Amino acid sequence: MIEPFAAVEIIAAKRDHNELTDPQIDWIIDAYTRGAVADEQMSALLMAILLNGMNSREISRWTNAMINSGERMDWSKLDRKTADKHSTGGVGDKITLPLAPLVAACGGAVPQLSGRGLGHTGGTLDKLESIPGWRASLTNDEMLKVLQETGAVICAAGAGLAPADKKLYALRDVTATVEAIPLIASSIMSKKIAEGTSALVLDVKTGSGAFMSDPAKASELARTMVQLGKDAGVKTRALVTAMDVPLGLTAGNALEVRESVEVLAGGGPSDVVELTIILAREMIDAAGIVGKDPETALKDGSAMDHWRRMISAQGGDPDAALPVARETHVVKAGNSGTITTMDAMKVGVSAWRLGAGRSKQGEKVQAGAGIELHAKPGDYITAGAPLMTLHTDEAARFPRALEILEGAVTIVEGGTVNRLPLVLERI
Amino acid sequence: MIEPFAAVEIIAAKRDHNELTDPQIDWIIDAYTRGAVADEQMSALLMAILLNGMNSREISRWTNAMINSGERMDWSKLDRKTADKHSTGGVGDKITLPLAPLVAACGGAVPQLSGRGLGHTGGTLDKLESIPGWRASLTNDEMLKVLQETGAVICAAGAGLAPADKKLYALRDVTATVEAIPLIASSIMSKKIAEGTSALVLDVKTGSGAFMSDPAKASELARTMVQLGKDAGVKTRALVTAMDVPLGLTAGNALEVRESVEVLAGGGPSDVVELTIILAREMIDAAGIVGKDPETALKDGSAMDHWRRMISAQGGDPDAALPVARETHVVKAGNSGTITTMDAMKVGVSAWRLGAGRSKQGEKVQAGAGIELHAKPGDYITAGAPLMTLHTDEAARFPRALEILEGAVTIVEGGTVNRLPLVLERI
Repeated sequence: MIEPFAAVEIIAAKRDHNELTDPQIDWIIDAYTRGAVADEQMSALLMAILLNGMNSREISRWTNAMINSGERMDWSKLDRKTADKHSTGGVGDKITLPLAPLVAACGGAVPQLSGRGLGHTGGTLDKLESIPGWRASLTNDEMLKVLQETGAVICAAGAGLAPADKKLYALRDVTATVEAIPLIASSIMSKKIAEGTSALVLDVKTGSGAFMSDPAKASELARTMVQLGKDAGVKTRALVTAMDVPLGLTAGNALEVRESVEVLAGGGPSDVVELTIILAREMIDAAGIVGKDPETALKDGSAMDHWRRMISAQGGDPDAALPVARETHVVKAGNSGTITTMDAMKVGVSAWRLGAGRSKQGEKVQAGAGIELHAKPGDYITAGAPLMTLHTDEAARFPRALEILEGAVTIVEGGTVNRLPLVLERI
Repeated sequence: MIEPFAAVEIIAAKRDHNELTDPQIDWIIDAYTRGAVADEQMSALLMAILLNGMNSREISRWTNAMINSGERMDWSKLDRKTADKHSTGGVGDKITLPLAPLVAACGGAVPQLSGRGLGHTGGTLDKLESIPGWRASLTNDEMLKVLQETGAVICAAGAGLAPADKKLYALRDVTATVEAIPLIASSIMSKKIAEGTSALVLDVKTGSGAFMSDPAKASELARTMVQLGKDAGVKTRALVTAMDVPLGLTAGNALEVRESVEVLAGGGPSDVVELTIILAREMIDAAGIVGKDPETALKDGSAMDHWRRMISAQGGDPDAALPVARETHVVKAGNSGTITTMDAMKVGVSAWRLGAGRSKQGEKVQAGAGIELHAKPGDYITAGAPLMTLHTDEAARFPRALEILEGAVTIVEGGTVNRLPLVLERI
């Protein structure tokens, strides 16, 4: 085949601060996916994009080209309105687990294609896989069936969905080209648009535990993604939410499932309950569902019913005991006072080092590993009282995990807490 | 082996405008050479260097690391002082051919490791290979022998010389990362320093036919390279010279050899003669040779004697007829007047398309192809008089070559010429 462009000319154009044309973008994504553009050429282009940027037209076209590299799912046969949520990832962010059945209980259909974790934030599939029997891989037909019967499905994205993004993501990971708003936004949105949802709520995290620690950058990312969603005909909105402190009281796979079930049972930590309800309201509203109250669905047990059906439909036993780590270590408060800070990143990295996360693709994670918090910023704690419990199957992991936690928590007698509001911005 | 660094951290540092440390630079060049750093990682780093720069310490260390990736040649056994020249490349730039024997005739030893051409400027080895029998590949021992016996050797760099640069150059070529001063300077100087010359004169070309068309950029490149040479203990100086118009009256392999022999015979175009003498004086002076006059060596035939010995020593027959292209096409002046401009780049690209140059490494070039000029800027020409003759073995190449030449030459009745001075700056 005679190629209409040369990769080197496209790289040079972006290097020299020029806009890429629509045909150039379409070609380079397609040619890269089929191997006609080499990894070393694409990584040079990605670095040029990271440093010189892309305008909104380029980002939109780049996203579309990635969607067009694979299949786009179609839920038009469903008799429910679809709505999905995507979080950019945070420590203890288990919101998808109670949220998907909650929205299903309100009459929506949540077709969530999710991923596994890499680094300090957990992956939704890793969390659900701690439930005995539950499986992440479904065919498209199975996915439609679960969605139709239970109103919610959370499963692994198949190889046919945005294959360009899969290849690009692996390349960005090893070439220090992850942290670019055009590339992050197009990666997330290509998958979510290809997933076929008609309404989408984005939870863009900011603060020390988030990939976008700067709120202004988080806001820019949120706006970029909302525009991409609208361009593709998906009713999209975004919330920029706090990730300065871990969400809830747990970070780890089975630990987070347990907390999610508490929320579905009408209990659970107030921040997790609050954010779950806020996001459910946004999803229901974006999907055009009226007269449903998520708060009621949590209280009357219907959200829990939907959770049990969703887990069962994918082979999981909602009544099975969750795995527990073999070893625990309790960290006690060194002095008495008010907890004024609790660094989300340090807690996340420590949980990762305990075995809850993976350092490279394909690594196994420990179902029971993680960190359980016994107090949070604003709480008063007395010297010697338990502050957190570390869980792992291998006691040898404790020293490194404890080292990472040094300075993560500040306790000041009479101290005051300066926290980010839960929701910083709504777009 | 446990690597002391991760490539992704070094890429991220340069991406974020940080300086690379000496150990980081030493490691990444070594690890890339032995394949522990992947092409896609190095190309991302090269793009970050191109866009964010390197300071003089980083460039010096980078150059040293490339020298240390291979052998450094040693001419201490010679009883002559070594001096070499490097040109950044220009259209019709055959200066090395008369210059090397001329400096040898003045008592110097010129150990020139040279390359083949890529793109619109020819390669010295391609030119010499048009001489029947002449061969570019010599062992180190053969090189020493030719140098000792004739005072000049021009041959291909062996695989042991700056292997990091060879790998990097091939990568830069396909990733649009050629045009960065730190990368150009370190590439040239790593080879020239490893070559073992004790004196070096750099001919940095500027103007439309040069890689550095902007004189300010050419000056920056020249200063960067002179500093690198001094850092490595090589007596280095640079001239920034004009490349707005082709050098001499020929561009092409055998055509340029013929013109070079004319210069050695005491004739030849005045600009070629002048630049050859200027560069010879700089080389002789930098090498510390006193009491020798290159102009005399051209007139008294001693430079020609050295040329014949140098060619013979590498298997070439200095008396053999040079190859002639099968087809010629004469371009005539469309109107009468003074030639006011002659675009070097257009002439160079046209000669390349006629078969004198290659588009990718390994391609064959035509010995006889190229362009012969019958007049230059400042000359008066009458309508219908021959302006230039195109040479090629394949007549099918004429239309494309002629198309490229459109607008290359301006002829204005009573027009005045606005040319760059031959030498713009001496550093």
